[in-house]
Amino acid sequence: MSKDPYLYQFEYPIRIADCPTDPPKDVHEKDLEDITKDLAKELGKLNNVFMAEKKHSILVVLQGMDASGKDGAVENVFHYCTPANIRTYSFKKPTEVEFAHDFLWRVHQQCPAKGEIGVFIRSHYEDVLIQRVHGWIDEKRVKDRMDAINAFERLLEFDNNTLIFKFFLNISYEQQEIELKQREAERDKMWKHNPGDWKERERWSDYMRCYEDVLNNSAIPWTIVPVDKRWYRDYVITKTIVDKLSTLSMEYPGLPKGL
Amino acid sequence: MSKDPYLYQFEYPIRIADCPTDPPKDVHEKDLEDITKDLAKELGKLNNVFMAEKKHSILVVLQGMDASGKDGAVENVFHYCTPANIRTYSFKKPTEVEFAHDFLWRVHQQCPAKGEIGVFIRSHYEDVLIQRVHGWIDEKRVKDRMDAINAFERLLEFDNNTLIFKFFLNISYEQQEIELKQREAERDKMWKHNPGDWKERERWSDYMRCYEDVLNNSAIPWTIVPVDKRWYRDYVITKTIVDKLSTLSMEYPGLPKGL
Repeated sequence: MSKDPYLYQFEYPIRIADCPTDPPKDVHEKDLEDITKDLAKELGKLNNVFMAEKKHSILVVLQGMDASGKDGAVENVFHYCTPANIRTYSFKKPTEVEFAHDFLWRVHQQCPAKGEIGVFIRSHYEDVLIQRVHGWIDEKRVKDRMDAINAFERLLEFDNNTLIFKFFLNISYEQQEIELKQREAERDKMWKHNPGDWKERERWSDYMRCYEDVLNNSAIPWTIVPVDKRWYRDYVITKTIVDKLSTLSMEYPGLPKGL
Repeated sequence: MSKDPYLYQFEYPIRIADCPTDPPKDVHEKDLEDITKDLAKELGKLNNVFMAEKKHSILVVLQGMDASGKDGAVENVFHYCTPANIRTYSFKKPTEVEFAHDFLWRVHQQCPAKGEIGVFIRSHYEDVLIQRVHGWIDEKRVKDRMDAINAFERLLEFDNNTLIFKFFLNISYEQQEIELKQREAERDKMWKHNPGDWKERERWSDYMRCYEDVLNNSAIPWTIVPVDKRWYRDYVITKTIVDKLSTLSMEYPGLPKGL
């Protein structure tokens, strides 16, 4: 798929330390501005057929450190898509009831129906990331959960024709500091500020180690997205989704039967 | 566990044709009447501690042909349990929304929280039984779904301390006819009558073949319950659950912390 001159090629096993957080050297915002916009418009069109056809469902998982730009990605990538069939779900700290169930219980409920795009801002992967970094679960549980995740995603694929896109938003340690400070300083970003984010930042290398395990142990591969430049993030994600949907030869189904 | 003189021993692989539908020869209703009642009372007590302790959850799956006595089992086995923490769910034909998701989507939602007993009257197993018997899914899908079921039940076990009890209510072809005719004849049973049940009965041997596969391919083993005599059914199910719960050394947790 990607002889695309603007995309990096990644090889497994992934070492996050070797993965860029910036766009390729000669790629500039101006080069991609129109291309990304056209791709987003194309996604809007593809989404209309996809919604009408109801043959597949789409799950988009966005994972990344605090301030890696997950919310912004949703806003820009789906800018030209009707929200009619897009269900964004932002996973926060589990409620008491959620905690009284297995970790996939609340996640499964939010999975998209055929014709729907489910967008997860954070996801079931937090249950092998934040929980592991803090030592709230042991390594045996991490292994069992990764197995469960792989079986779960496989189920979504074979039993509901779910196309699963998983994006790891790769931000640099330096850029995160800039972004977190902006949140503290700018009126329209303050609502996202969480003093706890600075505390989590201290565990950066633990997070990277756990992310690396996730990337290398997932049955369904991840797309690694350099996000220090937000315009490049939008290009990579939109391009990845559009390329895949374009292979489906989707068609409007015509008049409903029996009419 | 079962040197119990009233229980059969079953060996895998299971051949349903070799499994009794009647109680052991010398076991009579009078022998078990008081025992079963005491067991049901004991279950009521155990359930109180279980509910208070909130360490485990319990899932009881009841599968069997039409009129094999699933509803009656629920009524009798849990007769001395408070309904406060018992959530019975009877799986019917999937709705349009349920059909637009993977087969475990609606099932997962109904899974019990810690301290709850979830009772499934029919279950996810219908998706490899009725759907297979009618050829609505191909054999590849059957295999994939069995794998998904095993991974799913394993998840409930390791991530939510779920004790899973699966009962196959084994009724004879002859007894089913008697039960179905009673439904048509008796005023208080007519509401359960479904003319389609006679049609399904014609596929008896297909159902037995598919049930046999389920019994032999489940990671978590089934309890086979001879149900031609309803009093024996109640004994086997209640005994099985009580025996298991008795091994947990559950305790009332005392006053909530911090008070």
